[in-house]
Amino acid sequence: MKREYSTIGKNVKKLDGIEKAMGKAMFTTDMKLPKMLYGKTLRSPHSHARILKIDTTKAEALPGVKAVATYKNTSRAKFNTSVAALTTIPPLKPVEDQYLFDSVVRYVGDEVAAVAAVSEKIAKEALKLIEVEYEILPAVYDPFEAMKEDAFQIHPTEEGNNILGEKVHIEKGNIDEGFQSADHIFEHTFKLPVQKQAQLETQAAVAEVSVGGKVTVWSTTQTPHPTRRILASIFNLPYSKIRVLNPPYIGGGFGVRIGLSAKAEPIAVALSILSGQPVKVVYDREEDFIASDTRHSGYVTLKTGVKNDGTFTARKMSSVLNGGAYCSFSAEVPGVLGAMGLSIYYCENQMYDGHGVYTNTTPAGAMRGFGNPQAMFAIESQVDIIAHTLGVDPLEIRRKNMMTPGKSWILPYECLSSGLEECMDKGASAIGWERRGELNRKDTRIRRGIGMGIGTHVSNAWPFCVDYSNAYVTIQQDGSVHVASGVPDMGTGTITTLSQMAAEVLEVPFEKVSITFADTESTPYEIGSHASRTCYASGSAVVAASNDAKEQILEYASTKMGTKDLTMENGFIFCTNNPQNKMSLSKIALDAHVEGKQFVGVGKIVPKNAPPYFAQFAEVEVDMDTGKVNVIKVVCANDVGKAIHPQIVEGQLEGGVVMGMGYALGEEIKYDPNGKQLNYSFEKYNLPTAMDIPEIDTIIVESHDPTGPFGVKGVGETSSVATAPAISNAVYDAIGIRFHELPLTEERVYKGIKNNK
Amino acid sequence: MKREYSTIGKNVKKLDGIEKAMGKAMFTTDMKLPKMLYGKTLRSPHSHARILKIDTTKAEALPGVKAVATYKNTSRAKFNTSVAALTTIPPLKPVEDQYLFDSVVRYVGDEVAAVAAVSEKIAKEALKLIEVEYEILPAVYDPFEAMKEDAFQIHPTEEGNNILGEKVHIEKGNIDEGFQSADHIFEHTFKLPVQKQAQLETQAAVAEVSVGGKVTVWSTTQTPHPTRRILASIFNLPYSKIRVLNPPYIGGGFGVRIGLSAKAEPIAVALSILSGQPVKVVYDREEDFIASDTRHSGYVTLKTGVKNDGTFTARKMSSVLNGGAYCSFSAEVPGVLGAMGLSIYYCENQMYDGHGVYTNTTPAGAMRGFGNPQAMFAIESQVDIIAHTLGVDPLEIRRKNMMTPGKSWILPYECLSSGLEECMDKGASAIGWERRGELNRKDTRIRRGIGMGIGTHVSNAWPFCVDYSNAYVTIQQDGSVHVASGVPDMGTGTITTLSQMAAEVLEVPFEKVSITFADTESTPYEIGSHASRTCYASGSAVVAASNDAKEQILEYASTKMGTKDLTMENGFIFCTNNPQNKMSLSKIALDAHVEGKQFVGVGKIVPKNAPPYFAQFAEVEVDMDTGKVNVIKVVCANDVGKAIHPQIVEGQLEGGVVMGMGYALGEEIKYDPNGKQLNYSFEKYNLPTAMDIPEIDTIIVESHDPTGPFGVKGVGETSSVATAPAISNAVYDAIGIRFHELPLTEERVYKGIKNNK
Repeated sequence: MKREYSTIGKNVKKLDGIEKAMGKAMFTTDMKLPKMLYGKTLRSPHSHARILKIDTTKAEALPGVKAVATYKNTSRAKFNTSVAALTTIPPLKPVEDQYLFDSVVRYVGDEVAAVAAVSEKIAKEALKLIEVEYEILPAVYDPFEAMKEDAFQIHPTEEGNNILGEKVHIEKGNIDEGFQSADHIFEHTFKLPVQKQAQLETQAAVAEVSVGGKVTVWSTTQTPHPTRRILASIFNLPYSKIRVLNPPYIGGGFGVRIGLSAKAEPIAVALSILSGQPVKVVYDREEDFIASDTRHSGYVTLKTGVKNDGTFTARKMSSVLNGGAYCSFSAEVPGVLGAMGLSIYYCENQMYDGHGVYTNTTPAGAMRGFGNPQAMFAIESQVDIIAHTLGVDPLEIRRKNMMTPGKSWILPYECLSSGLEECMDKGASAIGWERRGELNRKDTRIRRGIGMGIGTHVSNAWPFCVDYSNAYVTIQQDGSVHVASGVPDMGTGTITTLSQMAAEVLEVPFEKVSITFADTESTPYEIGSHASRTCYASGSAVVAASNDAKEQILEYASTKMGTKDLTMENGFIFCTNNPQNKMSLSKIALDAHVEGKQFVGVGKIVPKNAPPYFAQFAEVEVDMDTGKVNVIKVVCANDVGKAIHPQIVEGQLEGGVVMGMGYALGEEIKYDPNGKQLNYSFEKYNLPTAMDIPEIDTIIVESHDPTGPFGVKGVGETSSVATAPAISNAVYDAIGIRFHELPLTEERVYKGIKNNK
Repeated sequence: MKREYSTIGKNVKKLDGIEKAMGKAMFTTDMKLPKMLYGKTLRSPHSHARILKIDTTKAEALPGVKAVATYKNTSRAKFNTSVAALTTIPPLKPVEDQYLFDSVVRYVGDEVAAVAAVSEKIAKEALKLIEVEYEILPAVYDPFEAMKEDAFQIHPTEEGNNILGEKVHIEKGNIDEGFQSADHIFEHTFKLPVQKQAQLETQAAVAEVSVGGKVTVWSTTQTPHPTRRILASIFNLPYSKIRVLNPPYIGGGFGVRIGLSAKAEPIAVALSILSGQPVKVVYDREEDFIASDTRHSGYVTLKTGVKNDGTFTARKMSSVLNGGAYCSFSAEVPGVLGAMGLSIYYCENQMYDGHGVYTNTTPAGAMRGFGNPQAMFAIESQVDIIAHTLGVDPLEIRRKNMMTPGKSWILPYECLSSGLEECMDKGASAIGWERRGELNRKDTRIRRGIGMGIGTHVSNAWPFCVDYSNAYVTIQQDGSVHVASGVPDMGTGTITTLSQMAAEVLEVPFEKVSITFADTESTPYEIGSHASRTCYASGSAVVAASNDAKEQILEYASTKMGTKDLTMENGFIFCTNNPQNKMSLSKIALDAHVEGKQFVGVGKIVPKNAPPYFAQFAEVEVDMDTGKVNVIKVVCANDVGKAIHPQIVEGQLEGGVVMGMGYALGEEIKYDPNGKQLNYSFEKYNLPTAMDIPEIDTIIVESHDPTGPFGVKGVGETSSVATAPAISNAVYDAIGIRFHELPLTEERVYKGIKNNK
């Protein structure tokens, strides 16, 4: 019988830990190749304009300038910066609406030209020498404005009215009957802000084009393999002639570079082709803000039918999201928003409609949660309203309506496990849910309240888009193990976790496992790091490859040991019935080597999917005089399936809570009336700092999903989803004021208090 | 029915061609890493001495010096610089007789210490500051001297008498009966010189040890995977924690870096561990000569029993080879010398004894031909003597006795194909063999003659040592192909040839194939580039992997096309009986991708072996007044099995001929009486130059061996084997004087002419 896990569930030393702690870890930004040039980009000062004339003569004449790229001398292939276009499952049509450079610019920050020069300084100087004559076009910034009949069409679209991609419609049961059987109907609209991923490392790429035409791109992408596909389509090359890799780490991602790192990769490649030298493109923070995907802002409307006892009879939901000037993931985010929003509660009758809209703002794309935070702020706020209206405990109304395994839902895979109730129970206990009434005193300046929110998410993107993983696991001649997976490590501990899985299956010490990752040339296809998938899906491939190798080992060992009844444990293969008959894996590996045999495991998987569940609880203080919301404590109870490396899981969960707090309380990109971002720096953008972080009580719940390797579920995005509603509901609990719009800045809360008086 | 090959047999553009022609190709010597230090080595001025005292204090104090390595602060693990020790098939015992640094030095050039500094200049200066006190020990340079009872023992050995490793004994039939049935018995001893590989790029390595302890080594090794194993044993690390690769090319090899590049790798690693910074070690040409393996010098004795009609009845052969101060391949070369020497002619009764001997000279190791040139100079000279003595045409006596498929021989695999007779026929015709008598006029100062030599070789090292290959072949999502093989490209066209094979099997254009090579982390185990094996053995693995991928493609295509009767051709999969029913590979690959499937082929092979055959003919002029031998023309007829890329094959063959010419006429490392090399530079070492190269007529014979991929045999070493005897025999034909020692320098030939008068 299998004893306890030897590596799984242990906090082994993080593989990238010491390098990062000592400042030795290499990031794209650190790279320097011989003869490398520096690329800088000229960006549009207008939110919508046609380029009438562009003259690069003076820039080209500046000493040290090696190449100037514009729409005139670069690829005219249309593409999509996200992986979406290339991973969309037919018959969904991919939206490819942009060029590397175009003769029309559609938002402030849009790419006009780029320069490669021997120094960054010269490149910046050259940008000033590019003469551009613009014809200003009508611009629109709000999605409802953009959908008006007389609005200027930013792109030609099938639906018309600046509607982006295909509208999403999801339906289950009979929504009208559902409402008819309700005792109460609640309908609310919630407005969501533009949040920024604010990852530490800005978008960056280094491209080198060999004289033989081979293109190598080191970049910050979360998805090397799909990124290669996008570059191949832009530059019309066989995929095999392009290599994309990370070098070796990425300073965060949070969705901002699923696919291209904004346009860092193709700009670097284009400049390298033009100059014949390697080119590095690193976005400065302002560029990263204004010309790199954001979270979708927009509107979510909910109409919910409820019985007197709190049972939901109908749930109707719709969303209109601001996609910005180009389609990144705007065709997909509305779908996930709806799917997640409809899945958290069981209800016979459900309907969802949603879509994105083009506007002349920075494109919105993937960000941790991928529509789910928008959905759940709305849903969990409304559930709180319903509970208060009906006089039901918010915890109980959730317990009554929550989805449980075995019930039907709108998702195309089964719910086989749920730790949601355990999350709610443990979370409620940890926050002291029973104290709610006591805290809510009406006469003090500082008022305290407790609120909660729940949610679910995915463990990868299957079957919504193409999602699969392959991996190699090879046994070295001394019995040590090498793993090759195309997945990057954005700082999330992926490589440590995958190595733990291989160590566990192959029963070797963690220290004997090494891993190659995030390199299209040394790994088979792997879609990459997104959709909370690396541990679940990339992990499944590593486990499959490890098992493949293990089978080969046992088969070989059986010829040496004279029995097929073998067990692997702790570096040994032994006869199950006679543990004295044993051989070490090192000996087996060396014997095999002498006979010309290496154990080479290949893992090829299309993942299933599994719903992680979570409940978050927040305790807040509200200053009635200033409107300042101070978060005292957050309890984050998360059904992670199984924690492979508990510390890493906790780190992920805590980071998500902080991101959710930012969403709740302060983060928002604002525009001036001409469509220019107002707060494009860390100084001006209201990101939570270490000083803002409350006590976070992370509770790991393990529901051991049967589909995940070792029972794991995705954990990368979950904890950023339910923080905002938990805080907003706590604010309501504290001061009795409901906010239908984020973030709950001092200004907004102060106004709310004032208007309420 | 399969039409003509589409890529095989075509002179496609060499993958490394343009990069090398334009000076853009990267070699180890070109590398520069951030904070990289430069390592230089202090070498022994004595041929045998004990280090009584070594003081590195002053060197360490020199500004810019970051580390000083000696035997006191480095690994004490014994190793062998070649792959031999780690690939020896038990029960053969590996010979591991050296340390990274030792307290005894055993030849002039032996490593005493090494320094890493911020510049090469400072490192060299620091070497001068290392104070060493030596006790001189007795030294011996000739193998027969070394074997004397009273000789000082350089290493403790099992056999005693400085005999290196185990003595080789090969026997077939009954040698005594063979000699009894002979009409004539011929017995001669031949003496062979020390030849140097003289590869263009000297030994070099760059090592980087990460703070996490991961070791990366870029080097000139011909065998990254086995090299990793040697480094793992020296530094006591799991193999998976070491990465060895070429970056990406090597400037020649010719056997000099099968395993370590002399000690460049471990010195670089040791200095990197000590300094905590990357370290580059590049041997200068003098170091490359004095401290890097040479070809074995020594003695070959032949005793041959012959019938009146020229039939061989017994062949007895022995060799004593000078192994130098440490065992590189000295335990293996005597075996191959004997095996190849006994295999070229069919004879019932054969016997061979051979071994290496330690002396206080530069270690001898692998060099193109691996003992075979030594054997064949002796054998083919003696066959010429026999022919002349018996009055038989040298061509006919070879035809009469040559090995042919189906006959028994001493090799442990079958001879399944031979193009030897065709080589002899076509070669004789190309040289104008019938002109022999005419040319041989006795009264001129310049005399002309024609001679020949034949031989066989191997297509890899199996079953003499561990020899196997693995490869990955993956189909990209656009139908382009990626190959991963651990084999390096030393300039021999390996990567081009392997890519051609994958293109052929998968029916894609050559331009759509890319290849990763020579990297232990991105490829499964592959023994590397030696033993004429890359095309035959690495090729077999690539073909196996391609076929594995192809099977997956066809299986998948059958589900789309509704039939299993499918053929792949020219980028399409079509129904064999209905070619209108077809799908492109690109479409199949994209469809598979959308369904989450990549075709990932794994090839795992233990190669068989196949004998390449060759006949060489030389026409020479001898100046009777000076002794100068001028080669007018060489005809090199070679049974290559199948030429995958005829131009590359011709290039290999021509290069081998020139190396054979050097062996015949001028190359020889000489020592002074104290064991110091006299001619350790290209200026002093008599390498043939472009001006010396005669007309070379290369004739490709294709015998289509059933065991090789597409019928290929090894071609890397063959043409360097028979050049020397062909030239020496031509000299005999010209002037009637027989030389039993190489090289045929002006001095030696002049003395021969003088002594003959």
